[in-house]
Amino acid sequence: MSKVKFDSVLIIGVGLIGSSLARAIREYDLAKKIYGLDTSRTNLAKCNELEILSKGADSLDSFSEQFDLVIICSPLSTYKSIFASLNSYITQNTLVTDVGSTKMSVIRDFKETVKNSFIQFLPSHPIAGLEKSGAEFGFSQLFANRFCIITPINTNNDTINVIKRFWTAIGMQIETMDAEHHDRVLAMTSHIPQLIAYSMVSTAIELETHLKDEVIKYSAAGFRDFTRLAGSDPIMWRDVYSLNKDAVLEMLNKFTKDLSTLQKAIRNNDLTFLEETFRTTRKVRKTIEELGQAGSFDPRENKKK
Amino acid sequence: MSKVKFDSVLIIGVGLIGSSLARAIREYDLAKKIYGLDTSRTNLAKCNELEILSKGADSLDSFSEQFDLVIICSPLSTYKSIFASLNSYITQNTLVTDVGSTKMSVIRDFKETVKNSFIQFLPSHPIAGLEKSGAEFGFSQLFANRFCIITPINTNNDTINVIKRFWTAIGMQIETMDAEHHDRVLAMTSHIPQLIAYSMVSTAIELETHLKDEVIKYSAAGFRDFTRLAGSDPIMWRDVYSLNKDAVLEMLNKFTKDLSTLQKAIRNNDLTFLEETFRTTRKVRKTIEELGQAGSFDPRENKKK
Repeated sequence: MSKVKFDSVLIIGVGLIGSSLARAIREYDLAKKIYGLDTSRTNLAKCNELEILSKGADSLDSFSEQFDLVIICSPLSTYKSIFASLNSYITQNTLVTDVGSTKMSVIRDFKETVKNSFIQFLPSHPIAGLEKSGAEFGFSQLFANRFCIITPINTNNDTINVIKRFWTAIGMQIETMDAEHHDRVLAMTSHIPQLIAYSMVSTAIELETHLKDEVIKYSAAGFRDFTRLAGSDPIMWRDVYSLNKDAVLEMLNKFTKDLSTLQKAIRNNDLTFLEETFRTTRKVRKTIEELGQAGSFDPRENKKK
Repeated sequence: MSKVKFDSVLIIGVGLIGSSLARAIREYDLAKKIYGLDTSRTNLAKCNELEILSKGADSLDSFSEQFDLVIICSPLSTYKSIFASLNSYITQNTLVTDVGSTKMSVIRDFKETVKNSFIQFLPSHPIAGLEKSGAEFGFSQLFANRFCIITPINTNNDTINVIKRFWTAIGMQIETMDAEHHDRVLAMTSHIPQLIAYSMVSTAIELETHLKDEVIKYSAAGFRDFTRLAGSDPIMWRDVYSLNKDAVLEMLNKFTKDLSTLQKAIRNNDLTFLEETFRTTRKVRKTIEELGQAGSFDPRENKKK
């Protein structure tokens, strides 16, 4: 696979993911020019300070350039208006991709909005992230060794190949999936764990003050793992639940059924059932470690802080 | 606070926690002799190999020594028989403490079993751990900067002072609590998050095979944080749910109520409620980071593996 290089790339949304992409594109020399579009002055200022963009602006009309590649890295609720702007702005062949966590809604928004035949859209979802948001937390290696799922729609092979080569160049492994299937898989691997984490932290917040303070103080016992997820971007997640409602509710039903089974086992002191369940789940962890997708957790504090 | 030093310490259960304690006692020179008792040959062999014990054995009768300090680091279901053995074995003044995750049950077991007036028992709970189990994963700094909760019962001040100095010497911050309150706080910070993690991983296991494989493959999206917890010791956790049943069921009810509220908000597309909830939870994460109890997560793989 030969290396891909673009004349000019536009990243829409230069927060954690977008700015990490800009850093990676720069590091691997994948574009002559990298442009950034963001309504957040903080993100634009940070990108300026780090000199990771050729130019940053808060509206598409501030640009005079056309782009080979546009990557949408903003919350899912912004796609419709972004597609509308691109629809009127683009006057030469342009590949458009994105990083959104749901794919059915993105495709629907695209089909409803874009009538411009210069635009070739290939939905992508790089499975990479952090609980932090904002350009300041980005880094070029965020994507290294992670999976990127693409969900092509009537897309020609050339487009697919270029987009694949792009994600591969920044260290990702590509998988192709049907958009509906993607949304069910991600509901389970991402949207439900996140929702549960939010819910767990909410429950803690509602406790009587002294109990709440202690829960926070002694969080190292397990609760902190949930707060890490619950530290993520509120807008991004609000949009995910709104736009992947069906799959989320389906998987949530499965989860609450299983939780209620465990609840009954505790109530009935069914130690054999509990022990067997806990043994089985342990094996899943082992598999994830063997696949190299476990990340690494250090119980000590981060020295950089 | 002057440094504490014991003539001889017996650690009962030299798995992850017990062997880490042995390492820490050795590193900080807190005992002339460190003895280890464990029914697991693997743990004893590992401790031998690492030379962290003066002597290891699989039954109390293999020892001829008496001890200044005994630390129980074995599953909660073993306490009764351990207390019974100590009750008949101990013939000189001995401090006994433990590391168990519930305190009411431990105190009940002690009161029901021990009639030996040489034994002074002060229940402790060092809030430190890892999802791994076994002596091989222990390390001396496991306790550094973590909290240790003690729940004294008719204990004299000398005993309390010695035990406090011991935990402080290996890097812990001491907090005193009523046993019942401890069990409620820990239900929320530890037992419920752990149960939810187990439940979440169970749900994934029950999915159709191809979906399950993909959930594991794309776990980096959030699910992996749950599998980390779900990799923990099954026996230890089975015992926790059996012995802290009331507090666990109380907190679990709160959690399922909150989750069902979020579920309804998703069903009704109540974006404002979702966004507000997610914003509030974010603040909790910040507080935990400020308290220095967040640990540090690196999305990259651990190079040691």
